[in-house]
Amino acid sequence: MSNLQPIRVGILGFGVVGTGLYQVLTENSDSIIQRVGRPVTVKRIADVDWDRSRDVTVPDELKTTDAYEIINDPEINIVAETIGGLEPAMKFVMDAIAAGKSVVTSNKEMIARHGHDILAAAAANSVDVQFEGAVGGVVPIIRTLKESLDADHIYEIMGIVNGTTNYILTEMSREGLDFQVALGQAQQLGYAEADPTDDVEGIDAANKLAILSAIAFGRRVDVDQIYREGISQLLPEDIAYAHRMGYVVKLLAIARRRDDDSVETHVHPVLLSQKHPLASVSGPFNAIFVRGRACDEVMLYGRGAGSLPTGSAVAGDVIDSARNLTKNAAGRVPCVCAGQAEIVPMGEVSSRVYVRMKVKDQPGVMGAISTIFGSQSISIACVMQEDTDGQTADIVWIMHECGEDQLTGALAAIQALPIVEAIPARIRVEG
Amino acid sequence: MSNLQPIRVGILGFGVVGTGLYQVLTENSDSIIQRVGRPVTVKRIADVDWDRSRDVTVPDELKTTDAYEIINDPEINIVAETIGGLEPAMKFVMDAIAAGKSVVTSNKEMIARHGHDILAAAAANSVDVQFEGAVGGVVPIIRTLKESLDADHIYEIMGIVNGTTNYILTEMSREGLDFQVALGQAQQLGYAEADPTDDVEGIDAANKLAILSAIAFGRRVDVDQIYREGISQLLPEDIAYAHRMGYVVKLLAIARRRDDDSVETHVHPVLLSQKHPLASVSGPFNAIFVRGRACDEVMLYGRGAGSLPTGSAVAGDVIDSARNLTKNAAGRVPCVCAGQAEIVPMGEVSSRVYVRMKVKDQPGVMGAISTIFGSQSISIACVMQEDTDGQTADIVWIMHECGEDQLTGALAAIQALPIVEAIPARIRVEG
Repeated sequence: MSNLQPIRVGILGFGVVGTGLYQVLTENSDSIIQRVGRPVTVKRIADVDWDRSRDVTVPDELKTTDAYEIINDPEINIVAETIGGLEPAMKFVMDAIAAGKSVVTSNKEMIARHGHDILAAAAANSVDVQFEGAVGGVVPIIRTLKESLDADHIYEIMGIVNGTTNYILTEMSREGLDFQVALGQAQQLGYAEADPTDDVEGIDAANKLAILSAIAFGRRVDVDQIYREGISQLLPEDIAYAHRMGYVVKLLAIARRRDDDSVETHVHPVLLSQKHPLASVSGPFNAIFVRGRACDEVMLYGRGAGSLPTGSAVAGDVIDSARNLTKNAAGRVPCVCAGQAEIVPMGEVSSRVYVRMKVKDQPGVMGAISTIFGSQSISIACVMQEDTDGQTADIVWIMHECGEDQLTGALAAIQALPIVEAIPARIRVEG
Repeated sequence: MSNLQPIRVGILGFGVVGTGLYQVLTENSDSIIQRVGRPVTVKRIADVDWDRSRDVTVPDELKTTDAYEIINDPEINIVAETIGGLEPAMKFVMDAIAAGKSVVTSNKEMIARHGHDILAAAAANSVDVQFEGAVGGVVPIIRTLKESLDADHIYEIMGIVNGTTNYILTEMSREGLDFQVALGQAQQLGYAEADPTDDVEGIDAANKLAILSAIAFGRRVDVDQIYREGISQLLPEDIAYAHRMGYVVKLLAIARRRDDDSVETHVHPVLLSQKHPLASVSGPFNAIFVRGRACDEVMLYGRGAGSLPTGSAVAGDVIDSARNLTKNAAGRVPCVCAGQAEIVPMGEVSSRVYVRMKVKDQPGVMGAISTIFGSQSISIACVMQEDTDGQTADIVWIMHECGEDQLTGALAAIQALPIVEAIPARIRVEG
């Protein structure tokens, strides 16, 4: 078979992921021939800046600054887009599809927002578009959902899909650091960007959740309808209380499909039972936990970012596309959603919740607050009063499952009590 | 697309996995149409015993006792073999391939021993043979190795791939039970068979390791060359010592590829650091931990057995084969091994090791033993003396990495010392 013509790849963008992809494809070219049945070679790489220092060296004849030297090259079969962001990536990808190239991308924002249009264009042009590297770095969650668990009825996804926030939370938890200090450390180590908003406010995680939900549930999810809370408001004292109660604090991306096919989607900090398989996922690692009717629970774990791990995921997609091209089987795995998912408003979502209050340290406080919870039919699972300095006390509660709006109403009434000074924390509980 | 003819499936064997497969394919038939582009229907099921009580009911017209009503049915495209064991499964599978059917199987023993012949026959007949359900139940490790991490250079696999032994070890560890008591409980709960040899002696795990190594490293592994120790000799006191030293005890299937492409393969109990991602995999769950040059570490976790979980894995393969048939792309993923792996003799394998000795409680003991270790260039990582009843003491050692033969020699010399009563435990250490 290896006397077949090589499959030729063009890479758009030569940053963290692009260099990893190039390394993986070139260093393992012999075993890739064996696994595809023909060579897979990088023919051209486009980047606007070839002066930047990189870990890999590339022959000069591969370099170009013009993406269209790849998109318009009739010899190139597969275009790997590793630029990121919406534009010009989106235009390049659509033009590559129109030119009959299969496309591989690690661009979560583009797939989350425009995956539907991109996949429709791919189907119309009989090419593949694949995006394993867009979610969870090397974690093979996209292929698992599309090709391994695809016979099952998946109803829940919970993911640690942002390594930056997971690293910050791990450090806050291990060292008792404030958020700002842990963020600064993460920035120094290159785990967080100078403007960390996308990561710490859960925007990146929401993009990934939109992609995972659409694949797992077969309905498109509008990323702007995903409820989001970031980690910048988290306080080390709540992480410490959580530990004492048997929980860790994680930023989770959660999607649940109800029996009527409506979908809950939310990204926020969670108190997660230390016994949950996701609880031990620390530092820059990612993991996605899936529940389905037949599979019960499945979890995939690995590095959520980084040049070689993400490059390896993108290279896996390149090989898959190369195999489809060899067999003339592009479009083998249809990505067809049955319309837009109806998103459950967050006020109607239920969960267990941790609440911390600062109250005056005087008789009758616990009774007054409990009475309000009771009158709203909110049931208390666990309560702990602590930290008395003679004047004020911390009361931490964990409530049995209750609705978001229901709890908001109760907390407003409690906040109005003269004995309550503040309600500094309200964090959902899972596992 | 859904006006295409349905893909028709025949199921051979209607036991635990076969019933799960039937349930998954029938209950999710609507979403499967969407994911394949055409219906996938079960046309016929062969089993020798239709009187046995089962959780599912099947229309009478699907039932047959003759496997060849499936194998010879020109309308059937995919044969799912869920009988298990070598014969008659092997003959049925080879005949189905010869009849031009794609084959899906959950039969680890058959694939471990005859995978090479089966895949060669499949290639010659331009059909697919897939076997996700053969390893790890629902854990999608086969597809991940073949199709997601296939661009990488994988050099290590460590797996908890036998749910029976993992359940027994979890109970021994949680309740301090003897092996025989924990085995009896597992048998009562249906987690262990009446004759538990295959599971508790590591035979089942070795079959699975042979399959995983061949796929990950691209070289065939002779299952009879895999070094095996089971769990029946494990004592609760060693599990207790392990806990105190920060370890759990697991039966691990381990394969490592050296730089010269020779392969270490061994199945045995291991003291695994409690911090290792595999350490929290308990009860009937399986997990496979993979290390590669680019991916760093990846772990997949899920139920290792059971009707619906394994049925779901087999159904995923059925869908994959159905997609390949739809696109006329059978053989899309070549499974070609570059010959037989050279297996490193176990005596030349190195690891850290835990050793427990019963010694006379008198001065000079520690010195005499340490001197022998030192003379064999074996270096001590940690030592703990305990359990003195005035007459004898337990000494537990953890040795730095040392060769198997090297340690065997040292322990023989130590055993010969009059002060040493017994060496009841020698367990390798990982993580």
